[in-house]
Amino acid sequence: PIKHCESCSSRGSPGNPPALAVTMGKRVAVVLAGCGVYDGSEIHESSAVLVHLSREGAEVYAPDVDQMHVVDHVKGQPTQEKRNVLVESARIARGNIKDLAKLDVKGLDALIIPGGFGVAKNLSTWATQGKNCVISKAVEDVLKAFHAAKKPIGLCCISPVLAAKIFPGCELTVGHDTECEKWPYAKTAETMKELGCKHVNKHVTEIHVDMKNKLVTTSAFMCNAPIHDIYDGIGKMVKEVVRLA
Amino acid sequence: PIKHCESCSSRGSPGNPPALAVTMGKRVAVVLAGCGVYDGSEIHESSAVLVHLSREGAEVYAPDVDQMHVVDHVKGQPTQEKRNVLVESARIARGNIKDLAKLDVKGLDALIIPGGFGVAKNLSTWATQGKNCVISKAVEDVLKAFHAAKKPIGLCCISPVLAAKIFPGCELTVGHDTECEKWPYAKTAETMKELGCKHVNKHVTEIHVDMKNKLVTTSAFMCNAPIHDIYDGIGKMVKEVVRLA
Repeated sequence: PIKHCESCSSRGSPGNPPALAVTMGKRVAVVLAGCGVYDGSEIHESSAVLVHLSREGAEVYAPDVDQMHVVDHVKGQPTQEKRNVLVESARIARGNIKDLAKLDVKGLDALIIPGGFGVAKNLSTWATQGKNCVISKAVEDVLKAFHAAKKPIGLCCISPVLAAKIFPGCELTVGHDTECEKWPYAKTAETMKELGCKHVNKHVTEIHVDMKNKLVTTSAFMCNAPIHDIYDGIGKMVKEVVRLA
Repeated sequence: PIKHCESCSSRGSPGNPPALAVTMGKRVAVVLAGCGVYDGSEIHESSAVLVHLSREGAEVYAPDVDQMHVVDHVKGQPTQEKRNVLVESARIARGNIKDLAKLDVKGLDALIIPGGFGVAKNLSTWATQGKNCVISKAVEDVLKAFHAAKKPIGLCCISPVLAAKIFPGCELTVGHDTECEKWPYAKTAETMKELGCKHVNKHVTEIHVDMKNKLVTTSAFMCNAPIHDIYDGIGKMVKEVVRLA
């Protein structure tokens, strides 16, 4: 039985908002794909999304499925371990996470999917099949539901490929479309064009907004950039998603 | 052989700073304890430290030892798995990490240790033994080396207990010293006082600076607060550590 001290006991009295309550703004679903850049959700992108959503109402989800594989992040090589996407994503969510199968678009205002190889390995087969990939059914259903309800979708890093596959003709950015040291994954943009999308080159601190489809995208770690640039670009994405919601 | 494009090829010509290079400021060692609040380093605290250090030169380290245990972050209960602290910490560091045994204080300007139960489970035995805990030798050596060299040390959340054990008489904060819903771990402050430290109550967005010992502390997730407050408090800690370096 924990008591309330002076600094947290003012709850609910008129004109005196509770000290602990976060102002509930938009309810935004954040879908994770594990925990770690090489086999799950990119940690800093996920954290940046949650920091920037902290004044809103973020709800974190992940699919209850096995990861494609587990990568030793020191060696950069797969191990023999098995891990579950929901269980590992819970590390980022500090335990506050739900099974993606239980996501109900009705009560939610927007959707955000951070990047990391987990998007291309656990939410789809993009990592192995590129434009011929399969998007996992639960993820496709959720993306189509938000899209059909005209609720905004924010995607960063590699996760715009999900939209490229599901919404042909949409406008997206994964940064730049010409490979160089700063943009080592630029071929992704070419592949997205082959799927019928319009790719728009943007710097890492910029976003692209497809108003028709309510898609907000930013390159994040598709760019070889310092973390504060990633943080700022994602901040702009989150702000625009919330504004459109 | 990746080429440089226009946006990243301007390197080293006078008056035209290289697009990719991060301005190297202070070299700050960041010591991690795994990846996840319940058995490793707290992910958002670690990310906030690295974002705020992004304009400086962060170097991430972790000990090459087994975790005390692995916690399923959905259930909040230990599993039978075995994981290595260095390998899991590499998820936060995106692979850019070194063995703590190789840390050389000579080339570094400051030390920061984020929180999370890993500090009390993998860097020390605080989680099971409290004030009678043992600090792992590599961690104690590093803390003493920075302290002896009068280089600043930044600690947040539970990691100030390491200083409480090693530097009796120092001034620290882990937030508040009276338990309530907002401060569920406030007994930590009482235990630190029993070790001979001066505990100073601070809000989550504040820091305490022990100028004599060059210790900068902030409560972070010792407070039941929204993530943006954690981010801001850690930002102040990092800024002060860099200023003192």
